[in-house]
Amino acid sequence: MARTIQSLERAAAVLRLLAGGERRLGLSDIASSLELPKGTAHGLIRTLQQEGFVEQEPTTGKYQLGAELLRLGTSYLDVHELRARALVWADDLARSSGESVYLGVLHQQGVLIVHHVFRPDDSRQVLEVGAMQPLHSTALGKVIAAHDPVAHSEAADGERQGFTEHTVTDLEGFESVLDMTRARGWAGDVEETWEGLASVAAPIHDRRRMPVGAVGVTGAVERVCEDGELRPRLVAAVRDCARAVSRDLGARRF
Amino acid sequence: MARTIQSLERAAAVLRLLAGGERRLGLSDIASSLELPKGTAHGLIRTLQQEGFVEQEPTTGKYQLGAELLRLGTSYLDVHELRARALVWADDLARSSGESVYLGVLHQQGVLIVHHVFRPDDSRQVLEVGAMQPLHSTALGKVIAAHDPVAHSEAADGERQGFTEHTVTDLEGFESVLDMTRARGWAGDVEETWEGLASVAAPIHDRRRMPVGAVGVTGAVERVCEDGELRPRLVAAVRDCARAVSRDLGARRF
Repeated sequence: MARTIQSLERAAAVLRLLAGGERRLGLSDIASSLELPKGTAHGLIRTLQQEGFVEQEPTTGKYQLGAELLRLGTSYLDVHELRARALVWADDLARSSGESVYLGVLHQQGVLIVHHVFRPDDSRQVLEVGAMQPLHSTALGKVIAAHDPVAHSEAADGERQGFTEHTVTDLEGFESVLDMTRARGWAGDVEETWEGLASVAAPIHDRRRMPVGAVGVTGAVERVCEDGELRPRLVAAVRDCARAVSRDLGARRF
Repeated sequence: MARTIQSLERAAAVLRLLAGGERRLGLSDIASSLELPKGTAHGLIRTLQQEGFVEQEPTTGKYQLGAELLRLGTSYLDVHELRARALVWADDLARSSGESVYLGVLHQQGVLIVHHVFRPDDSRQVLEVGAMQPLHSTALGKVIAAHDPVAHSEAADGERQGFTEHTVTDLEGFESVLDMTRARGWAGDVEETWEGLASVAAPIHDRRRMPVGAVGVTGAVERVCEDGELRPRLVAAVRDCARAVSRDLGARRF
């Protein structure tokens, strides 16, 4: 077993620090946040800057994330098999449902959005590829937590923040949501994460029957719900999409 | 001056290797490509994997880029001042021109696309944020090479590949294209990079009058050209957009 490399772990910590919170930090802030001597932090940042992972603002001298991360992040997407297989199916789902479609995978303690199809109307929308969603409250997150044991541990052991009055935060309640998700094969989120928005999602499996991600639609509760319940036709469309992507990944039909 | 850190440089080289060419590589391929002992390469990859920068395909055991790069790349975009200032102007330009709009910045030896607004019609389009364009043949690239001395060196000293019969590859020809770009304040690309496509771009300056990027439109030659020339109204719209973004960045009007 090869050992891990401390300077690399520290460099990753610098990048994580710059990705959260303030996002533009001076050398002293970085050094003190990571409890590193200033000289050590300087060596890390200097190398990260040379490699394009960090940039220095000319006016303030503060550091921020660099362009090379965008280039590499896009290369990650290019090679993403699940995403490649899902592109056309996700487009079809957005067209047939009239809502925006999201494809997510487990990453760290949440769901990383790897594909997002805009709602097919002329409204201004912001692309959310690369954004994170919580595991415990979103439809995508519940589906992944219900089927992937690693995701389950993250969601069960981690903090479950209450975003609205509908968020299920207690462990027992959360576990029964996951039981229901496994039993019926899909998950919903009616204003549990965002006021006014509801989602449906279903799991995607690969040829080894492993859960590799989830696909879902999100829209205004007024459109996607009826009498406080997610519209059955929408649920069916999302599940059809998830099955189609799973089959394209080599999963058997039965 | 702090020294750079060798293991970090090597880790960046691993990521660059995985971002180009094959994209899924075994440990031996990575070690031999970077001329590293296998144990050294293993230590690097193990740490990169632990930090989410690299993932291992379960079936083949090969390595590919990891999800953390997408998350960090998106954080890079979130903090990008030029991009934030340009969002609304780029939307307006797409609407008024009916063509797709690109915002690019210099990165390494090319133009990194940091924002892309789809052509406002119902056609299927692929988001190109995070993609690279060549400096010597695209409208964005020429504008940046004409105004940024670092970009100029990269384009003048680097290889200028001929993509079509219209690409200007000889240095003298290229320099006179840049002279013209500086003189008239915008650059064009009529089938010099992609057959059937033409582009117009103009430079964006910040409050210190430094060139920080370029904005442009790209579309089918049949639409954006007339008698083999880029439509003057389109050129005017692109230049108006670039001026508006520059003003929002604090550039003076005169």
